[in-house]
Amino acid sequence: MKSLQVELGERSYPIHIGADLLGQADWLTPYIRGRQVAVVTNETVAPLYLQPLLNSLKDFKTTPIILPDGEAHKNWQTLQLIFDALLEQRHDRRTTLIALGGGVIGDMTGFAAACYQRGVDFIQIPTTLLSQVDSSVGGKTGINHPLGKNMIGAFYQPQAVLIDTKTLNTLPPRELSAGLAEVIKYGLICDAPFLDWLERNMSALLSLDNQALTEAIYRSCAAKARIVGADEKESGVRATLNLGHTFGHAIETHMGYGQWLHGEAVAAGTVMALDLSQRLGWISAADQQRAIHLLQAAQLPVVPPVQMTAADFMQHMALDKKVLDGQLRLVLLQALGEAIVTADYAPAALNDTLNAPYTQG
Amino acid sequence: MKSLQVELGERSYPIHIGADLLGQADWLTPYIRGRQVAVVTNETVAPLYLQPLLNSLKDFKTTPIILPDGEAHKNWQTLQLIFDALLEQRHDRRTTLIALGGGVIGDMTGFAAACYQRGVDFIQIPTTLLSQVDSSVGGKTGINHPLGKNMIGAFYQPQAVLIDTKTLNTLPPRELSAGLAEVIKYGLICDAPFLDWLERNMSALLSLDNQALTEAIYRSCAAKARIVGADEKESGVRATLNLGHTFGHAIETHMGYGQWLHGEAVAAGTVMALDLSQRLGWISAADQQRAIHLLQAAQLPVVPPVQMTAADFMQHMALDKKVLDGQLRLVLLQALGEAIVTADYAPAALNDTLNAPYTQG
Repeated sequence: MKSLQVELGERSYPIHIGADLLGQADWLTPYIRGRQVAVVTNETVAPLYLQPLLNSLKDFKTTPIILPDGEAHKNWQTLQLIFDALLEQRHDRRTTLIALGGGVIGDMTGFAAACYQRGVDFIQIPTTLLSQVDSSVGGKTGINHPLGKNMIGAFYQPQAVLIDTKTLNTLPPRELSAGLAEVIKYGLICDAPFLDWLERNMSALLSLDNQALTEAIYRSCAAKARIVGADEKESGVRATLNLGHTFGHAIETHMGYGQWLHGEAVAAGTVMALDLSQRLGWISAADQQRAIHLLQAAQLPVVPPVQMTAADFMQHMALDKKVLDGQLRLVLLQALGEAIVTADYAPAALNDTLNAPYTQG
Repeated sequence: MKSLQVELGERSYPIHIGADLLGQADWLTPYIRGRQVAVVTNETVAPLYLQPLLNSLKDFKTTPIILPDGEAHKNWQTLQLIFDALLEQRHDRRTTLIALGGGVIGDMTGFAAACYQRGVDFIQIPTTLLSQVDSSVGGKTGINHPLGKNMIGAFYQPQAVLIDTKTLNTLPPRELSAGLAEVIKYGLICDAPFLDWLERNMSALLSLDNQALTEAIYRSCAAKARIVGADEKESGVRATLNLGHTFGHAIETHMGYGQWLHGEAVAAGTVMALDLSQRLGWISAADQQRAIHLLQAAQLPVVPPVQMTAADFMQHMALDKKVLDGQLRLVLLQALGEAIVTADYAPAALNDTLNAPYTQG
């Protein structure tokens, strides 16, 4: 059991991490202001964890809201189901929304909380490794638009985040690996010693050792909290968290939401960012190989989809939120553990990366 | 020409008020950060004021977005038209949205700016008296939900507000009066001397005297800016701005959006709040009559719709955002110029007010 505080002035909040936190009312009720609570979850998570959570909320008027599962449903139509339920059950502006599920549930519930009556409280209980180490920290909420991922949303902070490592017992192995892509990312962008730790502990993580998971999640959240605390609205260093994401979003959009898991797309995108960084002479071929091996140890894809051309990538990347006044900025590595955001690279090098003959391993 | 500053720390912004401001680039361009601008307006306003505005934006890449007119379109479907246009024209997160129109355009454009790529800049150019004195100040943005008005939204501040009193020349007289309902409200809740001024200047305002309009708008915005500055998120005194609005929203919802203008519903709702305040012994019958006469001088309705029953009002008001944990709080007057928000009133008195035999004049 470990805790940390995300420091954001009056919007600061705690993250509690450990085995069997879910369903312990004492970890939850101090963060609920009113008497109304809506628990937003999905059809996959509800049968597993909704009832234990509702049991710990016996003193409140609770409204369970069960959404369809998957990134394909991260849109306005699904968001509207949350608003419909809140209004039908007459939730007022002192209500608290609890997100019980993965990143999609967290992003949508957070955005619903940001917008419902112009802002109500919410609490995150992320149940996937990806959401535990990524979307539960930093206040990014939102939905997809047919023309782009996460294009509609808000920066909105929760009252608290509860992470129960036991919820990973029911997570499909492919999704566990997808979460590890983001864990590895923290090592690559800002914590080189963490890469050593990951190389030593990857098998413990894959076998769901609670102590190893708690440590990896804690260290990931702490890295993200440091970065977000320094740059809440993503005007500078926060953008380094998007290592691999510009390429990765292009893969997700091109293949259709839900075909590649987010973390899988980020893993392949990270390899592309490493490739470009190496072509620019910023990291060595050995660094590049070491990172690729770590991603492979986590059972992640390390090559982009074979059918995607350089032109496909360029078309999707032109809509990326990191485009400023027409210039495509990318997150690249100057060394393992040291990322920068820059538009100052040779276009020819990017072109070479997009056309590189990627091969597995 | 008068200016004031809305003081909200790092979210502070100026309001410039005067005749012929529209189309003078110098009032606009200092508040635009990037090279992209989207002007959001509607089918009624576009033929009148869009071209002069675009002429003053020649140095920018501009995207005009023309929406259908009216409160009935203040919904997600219309909001989506803004996002579609922004994404199709590849607006990035340094774009600026300009709201050119009344309150509906301002509320939707502000909410679109709050949500697009999790927040971009916006500027308000309100063209109705109501939006000039009310929705352009304070950062309330949002859309309606089938189950309630303004239920989905955000608190989001503009970079600047430009108010051109000449735009009122094309405003239908009924809408001018609706705006005056909010002007009178400021006198009633926090500025008794302004009531004297309004009694003396009502005919100048109705005949669109630019100097009188500038003064009335300035004084209204200053009152609202004082209140919002003290309570940005509406946890306390800001709720007094809703004098007449709880009853008024019930009228708008019951009659169907767009049948009664917002200001008309607020005027009748204000009379109901005055009636309840007088029944509680807080204001005199003479105070009540004086306020009613001022609303009548502004050519506003002073009785609720004859077909609405007490039960109709109670049903709609139960969903009001000022309901906290089941208690209906109302804005009432303790004296002319002195409003409070309270749930501490005899339910029987509210019942009497809802059943009162209102008669015109």
